[in-house]
Amino acid sequence: MLSTGYPIQSTRKENMSAKTHKTKVGIIGANGYGGGQLAQILSSHPEVEVVGYSSRQFEGQPFRVAWPNSNDNHLFENMEAVLDKSDFIFLALPNGLAMDLVPGILERGKKVVDLSADFRLPAAEYQKWYGKIHSSPELIGQAAYGLPELERLAISQASLTANPGCYVTTAAMALLPLARAGLISGSVIVDGISGISGGGRNADGFSYAEVNENVAAYKIAGTHRHTAEMEANLTRAGQPSIVSFSPHIAPYTRGILCTCYVTPSRETSQAELEGLYHAVFEHEFFVRYTADLPTPKATVGSNRCDVSVRFDARANRIVVVAALDNLVKGMSGEAVQNMNLMLGLPEDMGLSKWGIWP
Amino acid sequence: MLSTGYPIQSTRKENMSAKTHKTKVGIIGANGYGGGQLAQILSSHPEVEVVGYSSRQFEGQPFRVAWPNSNDNHLFENMEAVLDKSDFIFLALPNGLAMDLVPGILERGKKVVDLSADFRLPAAEYQKWYGKIHSSPELIGQAAYGLPELERLAISQASLTANPGCYVTTAAMALLPLARAGLISGSVIVDGISGISGGGRNADGFSYAEVNENVAAYKIAGTHRHTAEMEANLTRAGQPSIVSFSPHIAPYTRGILCTCYVTPSRETSQAELEGLYHAVFEHEFFVRYTADLPTPKATVGSNRCDVSVRFDARANRIVVVAALDNLVKGMSGEAVQNMNLMLGLPEDMGLSKWGIWP
Amino acid sequence: MLSTGYPIQSTRKENMSAKTHKTKVGIIGANGYGGGQLAQILSSHPEVEVVGYSSRQFEGQPFRVAWPNSNDNHLFENMEAVLDKSDFIFLALPNGLAMDLVPGILERGKKVVDLSADFRLPAAEYQKWYGKIHSSPELIGQAAYGLPELERLAISQASLTANPGCYVTTAAMALLPLARAGLISGSVIVDGISGISGGGRNADGFSYAEVNENVAAYKIAGTHRHTAEMEANLTRAGQPSIVSFSPHIAPYTRGILCTCYVTPSRETSQAELEGLYHAVFEHEFFVRYTADLPTPKATVGSNRCDVSVRFDARANRIVVVAALDNLVKGMSGEAVQNMNLMLGLPEDMGLSKWGIWP
Amino acid sequence: MLSTGYPIQSTRKENMSAKTHKTKVGIIGANGYGGGQLAQILSSHPEVEVVGYSSRQFEGQPFRVAWPNSNDNHLFENMEAVLDKSDFIFLALPNGLAMDLVPGILERGKKVVDLSADFRLPAAEYQKWYGKIHSSPELIGQAAYGLPELERLAISQASLTANPGCYVTTAAMALLPLARAGLISGSVIVDGISGISGGGRNADGFSYAEVNENVAAYKIAGTHRHTAEMEANLTRAGQPSIVSFSPHIAPYTRGILCTCYVTPSRETSQAELEGLYHAVFEHEFFVRYTADLPTPKATVGSNRCDVSVRFDARANRIVVVAALDNLVKGMSGEAVQNMNLMLGLPEDMGLSKWGIWP
Repeated sequence: MLSTGYPIQSTRKENMSAKTHKTKVGIIGANGYGGGQLAQILSSHPEVEVVGYSSRQFEGQPFRVAWPNSNDNHLFENMEAVLDKSDFIFLALPNGLAMDLVPGILERGKKVVDLSADFRLPAAEYQKWYGKIHSSPELIGQAAYGLPELERLAISQASLTANPGCYVTTAAMALLPLARAGLISGSVIVDGISGISGGGRNADGFSYAEVNENVAAYKIAGTHRHTAEMEANLTRAGQPSIVSFSPHIAPYTRGILCTCYVTPSRETSQAELEGLYHAVFEHEFFVRYTADLPTPKATVGSNRCDVSVRFDARANRIVVVAALDNLVKGMSGEAVQNMNLMLGLPEDMGLSKWGIWP
Repeated sequence: MLSTGYPIQSTRKENMSAKTHKTKVGIIGANGYGGGQLAQILSSHPEVEVVGYSSRQFEGQPFRVAWPNSNDNHLFENMEAVLDKSDFIFLALPNGLAMDLVPGILERGKKVVDLSADFRLPAAEYQKWYGKIHSSPELIGQAAYGLPELERLAISQASLTANPGCYVTTAAMALLPLARAGLISGSVIVDGISGISGGGRNADGFSYAEVNENVAAYKIAGTHRHTAEMEANLTRAGQPSIVSFSPHIAPYTRGILCTCYVTPSRETSQAELEGLYHAVFEHEFFVRYTADLPTPKATVGSNRCDVSVRFDARANRIVVVAALDNLVKGMSGEAVQNMNLMLGLPEDMGLSKWGIWP
Repeated sequence: MLSTGYPIQSTRKENMSAKTHKTKVGIIGANGYGGGQLAQILSSHPEVEVVGYSSRQFEGQPFRVAWPNSNDNHLFENMEAVLDKSDFIFLALPNGLAMDLVPGILERGKKVVDLSADFRLPAAEYQKWYGKIHSSPELIGQAAYGLPELERLAISQASLTANPGCYVTTAAMALLPLARAGLISGSVIVDGISGISGGGRNADGFSYAEVNENVAAYKIAGTHRHTAEMEANLTRAGQPSIVSFSPHIAPYTRGILCTCYVTPSRETSQAELEGLYHAVFEHEFFVRYTADLPTPKATVGSNRCDVSVRFDARANRIVVVAALDNLVKGMSGEAVQNMNLMLGLPEDMGLSKWGIWP
Repeated sequence: MLSTGYPIQSTRKENMSAKTHKTKVGIIGANGYGGGQLAQILSSHPEVEVVGYSSRQFEGQPFRVAWPNSNDNHLFENMEAVLDKSDFIFLALPNGLAMDLVPGILERGKKVVDLSADFRLPAAEYQKWYGKIHSSPELIGQAAYGLPELERLAISQASLTANPGCYVTTAAMALLPLARAGLISGSVIVDGISGISGGGRNADGFSYAEVNENVAAYKIAGTHRHTAEMEANLTRAGQPSIVSFSPHIAPYTRGILCTCYVTPSRETSQAELEGLYHAVFEHEFFVRYTADLPTPKATVGSNRCDVSVRFDARANRIVVVAALDNLVKGMSGEAVQNMNLMLGLPEDMGLSKWGIWP
């Protein structure tokens, strides 16, 4: 299904003023970066209230022990307690756990945004890339794919939304205009540079002295799992293509920059490409076309993704650069954007369009 | 004047709901870090509207050229245009300019928070530390000193508030409880470590490759200008003392950590000190006593200052550690806190108690 | 001319022991990163002695004022004084100056390694990419191109060597094996990530707080000057190709990582590619094929370049990753390697094969 | 025992030229930062050869797996194999292991530098600060304390040398001139800022995203183990004093900066202090007095420690700042300096006085 093309906002605003109670939200797995970022964003959301956090590691301890940045004195609880009292659930768990939990949560009439990879791919693809047989394959088809700029209407009607991978959102913003316009010829190269928070909070192998003052490529040449999701999005957008994905890591905390290379399927020009990108994004809340090359620093703390495009006439190649905060628009901000759609709230509610600088 | 001891909040809330128009705010010098941080904070403040930004360097250019993090398409204007249409003015200029501008602004009935050092010290002290004769000495006495935790009432009655230096706010939060309790004997050591944004946006000598992977002491042994302001605050709090201030720079963007050393004037203990700090800060919005040693990272993007205290019985010495975001509680967030007081708004309006992490 | 394929070492060793006097070396422009790195390397070189440093900015001041890392108390001198007393000259000046100086230096019988771009390209190409008419076009043809792995013999016979660009050396090590084997089809993509020292010591726009916690693409889509030099090297190696070069900057001090994408001209495999790279580099002093993906951190302070290759069968694309220290193998270490060849010394003399870690 | 005051160098040089065989050196625990740094330094040392590395974690694997910076293809071996073939042993193990190993090694007639804390303190002090009963207390008295600037003669006669803690060397260089001159009154404050490599290679709690963009105090107020060693050095230098030590961590890889505060025992002046420091250090190889405040970046990769002093007349307080590379002069470089003394080699052999910059 192609996007409706316009963000959902104004028509639903009236409903809100009639609301007297905030929606009760629970965060499962609130000790990781996805859960922590959700908690921070939702702490100032006007229409939802986080009523519980779960964490096996921190159960019974105050939230501030895990999150010294927070101003919250609640205790972490066990998962069941949080599920019981919440009407809307964010699952912020490692891959492979949500597939067992979601059926029960949906049966109890609660809505879910799953931040893991469990519901992003068809069951066979999931098994191929994640090495595990899916335990709830029947639910994959019911899940909306949580990229509002591509699947806005489906998300607004869904009870279960699969939040995309961080690199995937970035690459999608870079490539969707080309795919929709049929401008892609042959395979696509996505060269990404992630900040180190992309490895998660407890990831081994990221001790400061070892990764500082370095950049590194990893899982290149068709081996990174986000490859499948990137290809699925090009198919959704109307132009199936193979993706060569080369992730890199650089010594910064937050952000992803993707530089994408596309051989055009026909003659094009810088002017045509700029016009195309501008038209696709001008009605979006959180994606903007910028004349200058975008950088992740400019998006830190915001839910924005900035995109720019260049045509390299010497090599007959389109180069697109997209940047976002991997923990916000690349993860938890996008999850809140999806929640807003699923709850019939204005799509941009509680989400910042300003980053902090420096 | 000693603090009233309690933040100003609840009694003024009713007035707000009656307001139909937001206060028109102007930012003079909006291309520096102080001005840019003000713009970001105020972009989501519910009761004020930034109606103009001035910048000599960027006049006529879109705000986003200077601030790629922003979502604001207004043009920078000249100072006069901004002053004309604003009712509340933030002066975010280099030291030595505000003293010439403030008289005219006050005459036009507008209120001012000055982020520079111009109105922080008595005229003679100003001349001694800043090497310049003050052009508006008669206004210094009218200016409130903008540390709400120390001068809340004066600020709420002032038309002109002198926003403190970044190190000074940090040291004040660390030392005020001791000064009020009369616990300081002899001179005090303040050992500070600032992030590099403390040098300002256009500061020379901070090129990445030169300052990265390094820490450095600078202007130590009684030569840094903030020394005078720190000493003045100890006097305000009731216990005049000499301060040995040793500023350091470390390779991080935002934040200040101050480790302060005090010889106690009488017998004391860890338990007494913890009780003292807890009691002083428990009613404050933005200062909190933490059992764990505080860090600036936990405050990034928030207006919080975290403080902890330790008694070193071996050496009979009190060690206090305080941390904040130098651009928020150390500068622009505190300026908004002061604005809220001056406008009769809840002191914490539009200011975050949550930082972002990581 | 193709490489002779073997480093020059053992046969010349005997000559050395007969030497009683060290060669007198002068560094022109010794206040920039190229000159400073040369001084550090040469401080422990057994067969040459740096007899003078020139710098307009620091003339008359001690070397340590510009280089706090050094243990050298000599004063910076003016250029003429240094040229007079030196037999071997390193020109470490901004682009566009060496072309006027080299004729006079060569006339006086001194040998020169020029670290700028002045003698790297044919005059017409130089004018096109650097926007300036070349003042000594007749000398360009006499200059050896200072990539020992490609032009070893020519360098050893030259009086003037043009030291390559930092990105160019990295890309050359990644691509030369493919070019020599005729494996390149169509245009090549070079995606580079440089540390910030690549911008030079006095470069504007690299203040810490502005570039920290960020990555950025710049001068992409055929606009970076190193593009021409990369293409010239592919021609030298036997397979002229167009290059799409996308430089990026990341927040680390030293290093370049290039990830290169090549569509193979015929069927190939991971095993064939590994064999090819291993064979090309096994006799090189400073280039090594590594099974693991290389990183610049592993080369810091050394003259090594590490290279690895992957075949992406899904996309039929060869991905090569190369890494080095941009100030050593990417600049001043390579310059010393060239000097060694020009002076008939063992090619690896005074150059480290070990980096420092962490 | 007070220092002899002069480095050991010239009289021993002749012996060296007579040597035909290099001393065989073994590194026990070569997978940590201490061992890795030793390997790198010794790779270019002219009079010793590393004949074996041990590591339980990497036994049987190539050295380059653990150290991608290295150019060494030897395999890690087990400890016994390395001890067998070595004549000089570096123990680079966690605290608490060397005390069990050293008796056997000394019995076999081999010399040892121990990089751990096991032989730095009297047995009772060791037990108090490290919480473990010492298993070889009789050897503690035989061990030289490995600070050449303080114990040069003892080290040159020792078979076992206890290499100092990293903070301790820094503080010692800052304070020894004052202690020798009897200038210290009351307790001393040592405020240190370490790079993150100080936590070791496998240290938990130092993941990049958690410690980046932050500074933190830790183990303050008399709780850090290096306190005892600092106090012991002041006693050795003739003026026993209590030390208040406040360690901090900052986001840089290598280096320590200590800012020390001393109340003078009598009237003094900036001029007297400068003269004192200059006189104490002018004959040292690796410690230099600098007029400008020193920084660790200027020492990276070198065995230098730079020191500067300021008198704060306002507060009647001496402030001394010292900086070094914690892995070189603060650990493995100092260990090599000690080895040189123990082997009768020139004290500075194989050790660099130049750091790398940037």
